[in-house]
This record gives sequence, structure tokens and C-alpha cells, in this order.
Amino acid sequence: MATLTVPEHVPSPVEDAEQLRKAFQGWGTDDKTVIAILAHRNSTQRKHIQEAYEELYKESLTKRLESELNGDYEKAVYRWMFNPIEREAVLANIALKKSVDSPVIIEIACINSPADLLVVKQAYQALYKHSLEEDLAARTSGDLRKLLTGLVGTYRYNGDEIDVKLAQSEALILHEAIKRKTYNHEDIIRILTTRSKAQLNATFNRYKDEHAMTITKALSADSANEFVSALYVTIKCIVSPLKYYEKLLRNALNKSDDDSLTRVIVTRAEKDLNEIKELYLKRTNTTLEQSISKKESGHYRSFILALLGN
Amino acid sequence: MATLTVPEHVPSPVEDAEQLRKAFQGWGTDDKTVIAILAHRNSTQRKHIQEAYEELYKESLTKRLESELNGDYEKAVYRWMFNPIEREAVLANIALKKSVDSPVIIEIACINSPADLLVVKQAYQALYKHSLEEDLAARTSGDLRKLLTGLVGTYRYNGDEIDVKLAQSEALILHEAIKRKTYNHEDIIRILTTRSKAQLNATFNRYKDEHAMTITKALSADSANEFVSALYVTIKCIVSPLKYYEKLLRNALNKSDDDSLTRVIVTRAEKDLNEIKELYLKRTNTTLEQSISKKESGHYRSFILALLGN
Repeated sequence: MATLTVPEHVPSPVEDAEQLRKAFQGWGTDDKTVIAILAHRNSTQRKHIQEAYEELYKESLTKRLESELNGDYEKAVYRWMFNPIEREAVLANIALKKSVDSPVIIEIACINSPADLLVVKQAYQALYKHSLEEDLAARTSGDLRKLLTGLVGTYRYNGDEIDVKLAQSEALILHEAIKRKTYNHEDIIRILTTRSKAQLNATFNRYKDEHAMTITKALSADSANEFVSALYVTIKCIVSPLKYYEKLLRNALNKSDDDSLTRVIVTRAEKDLNEIKELYLKRTNTTLEQSISKKESGHYRSFILALLGN
Repeated sequence: MATLTVPEHVPSPVEDAEQLRKAFQGWGTDDKTVIAILAHRNSTQRKHIQEAYEELYKESLTKRLESELNGDYEKAVYRWMFNPIEREAVLANIALKKSVDSPVIIEIACINSPADLLVVKQAYQALYKHSLEEDLAARTSGDLRKLLTGLVGTYRYNGDEIDVKLAQSEALILHEAIKRKTYNHEDIIRILTTRSKAQLNATFNRYKDEHAMTITKALSADSANEFVSALYVTIKCIVSPLKYYEKLLRNALNKSDDDSLTRVIVTRAEKDLNEIKELYLKRTNTTLEQSISKKESGHYRSFILALLGN
């Protein structure tokens, strides 16, 4: 369930655009209004506001927001303004700058359904005139390249059918390779990058049943290794994306990693952030809102809390 | 241009189905009628005939054809009866049996547009409840696996934009790797599997301009090597599919490789077999029909020649 709250009576896009324009005028920005509007409109409504704003004032709302706001607050609002598909394409592109941010690529490749991943790849091409695959391959190397290009490239089968014998044999292959610490074994990469999510879940369950330990637990011994960590994230994103996000939020708040905090809140607020919040509460005995209030400040905090439904 | 010829006045699907039924009855099969009908109907018409036949006689036309015909003739008719997308999915699946038939996989991955490749992969999943990627990865290994899964997996950018500097730098990377005979260099695989076709053509042209030799010529020194041969086929399929098919036909006729002969004729008869025929005539001073008449015989020959427009 989403955390985004939209007022019962939403003003017209033109009214919203006019309010925003007023908020930008004069000394400083009326951030309360900006947040009250933008953090309480869904993707379609935001799109209509952008269109109305551009029509009325002959300037891009996003560009104007960029010049009005700053820091993490600006970044968060900027990302929020995209439609969900384009946002993932943009996040993928940002993740490929400088040192590659593998978790972002893995999230996009593994949490989306195969059909949604395809649409993100199409949006990426429309924006950058390149395929996500070629940019990713050009900016990575070695085992990590094999893993990431495989995850992004494969159009996974999305059915529920499970081959029990295959789960058994591939759980064994994974176990043998992990036992020998040959984490880059080509079969590990092959299995993780090509099998359907249903099949992988069956394989991981089999692994746990046979070896009295989850595969992620087995990998966590060497999680300092970048490649092993990428395998770990891959499996988490396939098996339990909500738990993955909950942990990501926890780590982000502990390490003041506002980029990750923003990413989870902005990308999930219209999807399943409510379930993630519940997991967070269970795990930490604190509400996500309380933690954010304690760690963050200013308009960034207000905006993020607004997306959480406050 | 297609070579398939369809009569000006096509009988109704029911009439065609009735004629076929008659052709199957009594001693033996009236192959002349079978060929006269099936080799002169387009994909949609064949589909309607199949539907009408099944409706009238409560049996599958394809299954009946399998039991009536045999050998290469049966195989050719069987393949012809599929719609083009499903046919490629079936051909891919057959190519993965026993020892993997890489050229078939490469043709499907590289000659189709990115959008058509995607549709073939969707058809594959619908038929086999697996992804093409996972079956391919499970049945290959090493460098060939990297190449083939990359070719099938990547959703290539399909635009015409070319980055001239990139073509220059990647032509150099390819040249260095080929000069050192490190054909499995990860950059060779990366470039061939991820760049857009337009970009690759620019890169190969640059290669030729710089080194006074085409990249395929440079590779042909080691074409006995299975992996090098796969690289060669990849480049040919990207750069000049028609010439690739022409050569495939020539080799198939020389080596009595009826599987390949059937594949080219059946898959291209509704597309561009006419251009391929013209290239064949230019190259050999013999018409494709003459060569087939000389090398082949029986109903197989009649059927294949009918698809060529005779």
C-alpha cells in the first residue's frame, strides 16, 4: 500500500500551478505550499500540474523547482516529479556515473516485474539514446559486469511454474560454489541472472532446507567483498524486496545516506511504502517517521515526512 | 521482397481445408494439392485454414500433416505452418537441443529488430514456460555462453544516432584484441552484444578504414575456432543479413545441409527471399531454383521451389 495521501478535493492543475507560482515569487520560497501541493498529488496529477504550469508561465516547473530549492530537498523533489518509469531510468543513469552504484541497478533489474523492467529500459533509451545495457557494460568490468548485465538483460520468465528437480540441482550447485568461496562461478551468475523469480525462490528454499541456513546468510560471511555484496542484494531483491527496502532505510538512517533514504521514499511512496514502514516498526520498535524526525531536518525532512503520509 | 506468391483469387479457408482433407484421404497423399495450397498462402491465410480445418474435422491440421508427410518435406511444411514469430521461437528451441546450434540463435538475436526479438522471446516463454535466456544459458558455457546470452539478452537501442569518437575507440579495442588473437576479450563481447546496430556499423566501417581490412576478414583467419566463427556470424548478421543468408544457402546446397536450406527458405519467403535470390544469382551465375533443382528431389524440392515463387 502507498503512503502518499491525496486530499479528498484536489484543486485543478491550474489552481495548483498558480499556487506554486505564488510560492516561488518574492523573497525566498514558500516551501510549506510547495510541499503541501507536490507531496500530496499522485503521478498523474503531478504531470497535469507540470503541463498547466508550463502552459501558464512558459517555463518548466521542474527547472524552476531546481532553481528555487537546494540540497537534499531539491534532489528529493526533483526525483519525485518524474513519473515512476522515467524516474527509474534516471536513477539508473545516475547510478552509472562515476563509480557504479550496483544496488540501484540491481533494485531496478530485480524488483520490477520483467514487463516493468522492459518499460524502464525503453524509457532509458528514449531519454539517453543508448541502451541501459551498453552504458552499464561500458562502465563495469569483470564479474560485476557479468552479473549486472545479465540481471538487466534477461527478460525473465514471469510464470509461477516451478521445476522441483531443477531447484534441487541448482541449490546444490550454489551451495558447492559458495562452500568453496568461488562466488564468481559462472553457474552462480547464470542461475541468478536467468531463472524466473518463482524458480529462484524454490531454489533458495531448497538451499535453506538442505543446509539449515539461508543462502544470504551463507553469503554474508564475505559481504565486504563488492561482488558478494552484489549477489546478496540480488537475492534479497528477488526474495523479499520489502525487507530489502526496510533494511536499506535502516542503514541509510544510521549512515546519514540521504541518497538512499530519498530513493526508497520517493520510489515506494506510491507503491508499498506502508508495508515497508510496518516492517521498520516491527524491527526497530520505532516508527519510520520518528527516526526520520530525529535524523533529518529542514524542508527535506518535511517533504519526506509528507510523502510518508504526514 | 517476398518470393511467396498467392493466387489472385484465393479460395475460402473452408474450401482450402476441404481440398486438403481430400488430399489426405485414400492411399498416399496428394502432395501436389498440399503444396499448391499451403505454399501459396500467406501467414494469416494459413492460420485461417488451420482454424477451418480443425473446426471441420476436429483434428489439428499440423498433426495430420506430420502423419501424412515425412523427411525433409514434412519438416519444411511443419515449419512453414507456424506464424513467423512462433516459428522463430520454435527454431530457437530446436537449436538448443543436443549440441547448441549457435548460428540459429545468432540469426534470431541479431537479424530481428530489438522489438521483434522481444516478441520472439515472449512467444518462447508462452510455448515453453521458460525464458529463452535461461535455456540458452543452461545449455552453453564459457565464452560462447557470454556471447549468446548477451546477444539474446540485450534490448539494443534501435536509433540511428552514431557516436563517431566511440566508433573510433571501439574499433581500436577490437583491432587490438583480434591482433593478439584474444578473441574472447571481454570488450569484444561487450561491444558486440550491447552496442546499437547503427553504432556497430560505424565501428566496423572505422575498422575497415583504419586497417584496410574488414573485421570479418580479420576473423576469418581463425574461423575453424567455434567461438571465432560465432563472432563472425554475429557481425555478418548485424552488418549484412541478406549476404549472410545468401552464403548460408550456398553452403547448405554444397554440403547438403537441408536443415539450413529449409530454415532460410521458410523464414525468408514472406520477407526478403527475393533479394537473397538476386544476390545468389550474382554470386554464382546460377539461379537459386536451378541449384535447388539439381541438388534436391521429390516433394521436398517441389515444396521449396513453390515457396520460391514457382
